[in-house]
Amino acid sequence: MADSSRIYTAALIVIGDEILSGRTHDKNIAQIASWLGVQNIRLVEARVVADVTEAIVEAVTALRARNDYVFTTGGIGPTHDDITVDAIAEALGVPVVVHPEAREILERHYETRGGVTEARLRMARVPEGATLIPNRYTGAPGIRYDNLFIMAGVPQITAGMLDALSGQLEGGAALLSETLGCWVAESAVADLLRETEKAHASCQIGSYPFWRDGKTGANFVIRSIDAEELAACTRALAAGLADMDKPVTMGGI
Amino acid sequence: MADSSRIYTAALIVIGDEILSGRTHDKNIAQIASWLGVQNIRLVEARVVADVTEAIVEAVTALRARNDYVFTTGGIGPTHDDITVDAIAEALGVPVVVHPEAREILERHYETRGGVTEARLRMARVPEGATLIPNRYTGAPGIRYDNLFIMAGVPQITAGMLDALSGQLEGGAALLSETLGCWVAESAVADLLRETEKAHASCQIGSYPFWRDGKTGANFVIRSIDAEELAACTRALAAGLADMDKPVTMGGI
Repeated sequence: MADSSRIYTAALIVIGDEILSGRTHDKNIAQIASWLGVQNIRLVEARVVADVTEAIVEAVTALRARNDYVFTTGGIGPTHDDITVDAIAEALGVPVVVHPEAREILERHYETRGGVTEARLRMARVPEGATLIPNRYTGAPGIRYDNLFIMAGVPQITAGMLDALSGQLEGGAALLSETLGCWVAESAVADLLRETEKAHASCQIGSYPFWRDGKTGANFVIRSIDAEELAACTRALAAGLADMDKPVTMGGI
Repeated sequence: MADSSRIYTAALIVIGDEILSGRTHDKNIAQIASWLGVQNIRLVEARVVADVTEAIVEAVTALRARNDYVFTTGGIGPTHDDITVDAIAEALGVPVVVHPEAREILERHYETRGGVTEARLRMARVPEGATLIPNRYTGAPGIRYDNLFIMAGVPQITAGMLDALSGQLEGGAALLSETLGCWVAESAVADLLRETEKAHASCQIGSYPFWRDGKTGANFVIRSIDAEELAACTRALAAGLADMDKPVTMGGI
């Protein structure tokens, strides 16, 4: 299934005024980023947009055009502020229809909970042609349309939907990484970092400083899709730091 | 200074591979969103982009054109992967220069820490015409260029820079909000929410469901720039919920 000779990319659109107001701290960017890594798909951009049709349409249109996959979270509940499905259908240029299987799922879920009302039936609406992503927590399914995955915003429910998608998506070259931690100011080893990266063409070195207990440290994350180059680059950086009398902690601090 | 008759908008660009890999959980979207609220500026979009020049240039160009303010976090350190200043200068069409005051700050900061090296001097580089944002933690300043604010990515340092900017930015109409919490499925009160919002034209009602201890609840956040309408809308929603035998917790659950 996978084409390991190329990198598969994904973009994420987090939809919700509550994230932009600061009221709710987003957890889906990190959660989906980590999950995508396991699927050998690289998250290359994420956007947080308001509960505004034009904002959703713009993001979906721009990001679908240049990524293998696009994921959205939020705005698929039963209330008036849940406009994701309508906005995405508009972006796709297809009508919104009630999905028969989604309606059945909701009828079962709400059988002992007061029945399916007009509001609850909103959660069976999908862009025409879509399939469903199971939601084992609260019934209302997520939606897949081609390379677009429309998921819930509540992180536990998103997690269940990701779980249902695990292993289902075509992925490419795995991005491998190693981390070296060091009690050093990154500015003191900037030349070493630059030169080591330059000497290992397939590798990127990220430098992430921190300050703890009055001391300065940094983690250096080396990434590559080539396992041998990754190992060689990691050895070279560790040796370079050791030469400068900077002991290295494998796996990071 | 403020023009309270209009809404001032801001966009945020979070720059960093470490957020997109899932390694680091972003804290700056929520932190900056909350801080902007206090300045009476509304965060209307946020993007997370990779440490890639073209991605930064695209985001800066698009978001500056349609917002009163643009903030960036990340990529202003001393290492090779810190490309924010160069990318933003490219987007602005101005050269990168060493800011004399920034150089002085770094010379003082590193006087007892091994002196200013070429790598450290990178942190004094700014788009020509920029001014500085103080950094009380680690010396290296943030950068202001017109309506663009270039800040550090480490959340404590970002916080210090925001603190230095507090009260300095022109803001507009304050977005006021009230929260009502209720042990109810949002789908059971969807019509009430929709009608109450419709009856109070200046108000938006957001519905945020949660599941706790096997029970279903929701917080309803009512927002408006009009204090009287906000109070009236909140009263109407609370009364509507009480009429349905759904006791309300002011301030949310």
